[in-house]
Amino acid sequence: MAVYTDVSDEALSAFLADYDIGGLVAFRGIAEGVENSNFSLRTTTGDYILTLYEKRVDPLELPWFLGLMRHLAAAGLSCPLPVAGSDGEPLRELCGRPAAITTFLPGVWPRRIKLDHCRPLGAALARLHLAGRTYAPRRANTLGPTSWTRLLDLSLARPEAVEALSPGLGGTLRAALDAIVPAWPRDLPTGHIHADLFPDNVFFLGAHLSGLIDFYFACTDILAYDIAICLNAWCFEPDLSFNISRARTLLAGYESLRPLSAAERSALPVLSQGAAMRFTLTRLYDWINTPSGAMVTRKDPRDYLRRLRFHLAAGDERAYGL
Amino acid sequence: MAVYTDVSDEALSAFLADYDIGGLVAFRGIAEGVENSNFSLRTTTGDYILTLYEKRVDPLELPWFLGLMRHLAAAGLSCPLPVAGSDGEPLRELCGRPAAITTFLPGVWPRRIKLDHCRPLGAALARLHLAGRTYAPRRANTLGPTSWTRLLDLSLARPEAVEALSPGLGGTLRAALDAIVPAWPRDLPTGHIHADLFPDNVFFLGAHLSGLIDFYFACTDILAYDIAICLNAWCFEPDLSFNISRARTLLAGYESLRPLSAAERSALPVLSQGAAMRFTLTRLYDWINTPSGAMVTRKDPRDYLRRLRFHLAAGDERAYGL
Repeated sequence: MAVYTDVSDEALSAFLADYDIGGLVAFRGIAEGVENSNFSLRTTTGDYILTLYEKRVDPLELPWFLGLMRHLAAAGLSCPLPVAGSDGEPLRELCGRPAAITTFLPGVWPRRIKLDHCRPLGAALARLHLAGRTYAPRRANTLGPTSWTRLLDLSLARPEAVEALSPGLGGTLRAALDAIVPAWPRDLPTGHIHADLFPDNVFFLGAHLSGLIDFYFACTDILAYDIAICLNAWCFEPDLSFNISRARTLLAGYESLRPLSAAERSALPVLSQGAAMRFTLTRLYDWINTPSGAMVTRKDPRDYLRRLRFHLAAGDERAYGL
Repeated sequence: MAVYTDVSDEALSAFLADYDIGGLVAFRGIAEGVENSNFSLRTTTGDYILTLYEKRVDPLELPWFLGLMRHLAAAGLSCPLPVAGSDGEPLRELCGRPAAITTFLPGVWPRRIKLDHCRPLGAALARLHLAGRTYAPRRANTLGPTSWTRLLDLSLARPEAVEALSPGLGGTLRAALDAIVPAWPRDLPTGHIHADLFPDNVFFLGAHLSGLIDFYFACTDILAYDIAICLNAWCFEPDLSFNISRARTLLAGYESLRPLSAAERSALPVLSQGAAMRFTLTRLYDWINTPSGAMVTRKDPRDYLRRLRFHLAAGDERAYGL
């Protein structure tokens, strides 16, 4: 849960004066998201989300994110549409932080993943990849394979903390990195990927997928890597056993709109290893560096280490139901 | 901010099946309130708040609170109206906790108090007191003067923690209690009071007061004590100097609907001392007993100690602009 910056009613009124979206009706902090401060905002013209970008987001990158969201929404994807101020600019400032208003999306994110979610999820991911083709600006993946060694080194600067979390963890990750990075595919189709499509970023109304949110990790990278992130985020049971039916259904949903090449299919194990590595490493870093009194729930990196072990043992794409 | 209990989409769907309020459209945790878990809920028929009552609220008292809210709303006060399920019962269970749906109120709570807020605030408080007259059930104030000695004793069981917060604090509070409790008025008009009407429980749209929320400290007690709580909560500047213009305006708003008797007026100093004492003591107890890693922001009891000092020095009602 997170609202890092509170917004005074006076600051809000002054901010809204720069928009043509009607008068203020209601304003409440939203207890979701861990990177930014989000508020539900109602005006006489409708419902919106107001986001204040906190320190984890580079302000210079915000135009790329907002431009991508506008592009995807214009292409028919159900994602937040940035609302421009009277001067045509969607990115503004509030309480000393970059801020933007986006449209409100209906739906509820699934707390318990069901097989029924996986086909629409796969299809939405393919739709995102296809719609992104005509958005020209690129953004490098700052959390891609070239960053992982440095991320691990940063955590291992406190070896006792890593060891306390899980004996032998540092060595295990180092060995896995030494296997994954050299094997990382070089010639697979790239494009704009969401890169963080976890269940809390996907809204459903019943079996219908009603929207995708939180594009602030989006970047230009291997398209199938986005699938690998979803395989990690959606296809493990709470006991961390792998649900191959979900994987097969997710992939079938994806391939109904964008069939995978043989090279993409056979890269699924290493891409999934990399996705598990990426979330293990960022969680490990946060785990070690989050003060115990912080108002953020730390996520246990060991959950992703167990996923990593599954993918390291996956011989080929048949492990994912293909 | 607070959402203590997350509600799965499946549990929510099953819960909503017991209501005739249409289909689910959206559901988000609200990052406000520190006692219960609150969610903003949209259905095809409108907007609601779903509250899960956490351990601080006695389930046996919930029918009294919900009954009072229904009574006040029916009398025209803008407060949350409990929504009954198909069986006519507004109090139900969700995720193992008592739960209720109430109507959504427009408005924004004032982060910076302005003089313009004080007259509508006083008038709304008087309206609440007048509307409450015809609600027959009573609820004792469990945080009234008879509880204060015990509350202080509980904190002083850890004298080093109290002393660390403010040297001499225990003795100061004990001496103040010895003065306030014997002087507590016995024959003032009583009725149902809100007892926690802080700015974050009062919504405004511009200068218009659009609603009162959070009735879970409401009880049957001296009506003018509710005014004293508001004098504490609304009439001090951020530097804790007293703003007598706000007090005068608040009282004028109140008296426009319910004039105070001479006895009520002359009791304002001791009632205000008591109100400051009550919040000093509960904040002190929470300060000492909240683990440093808890996801709740502790409120500094010393802010109310300074208010208490102001009220102890108030000779009579003229200190409040009367």
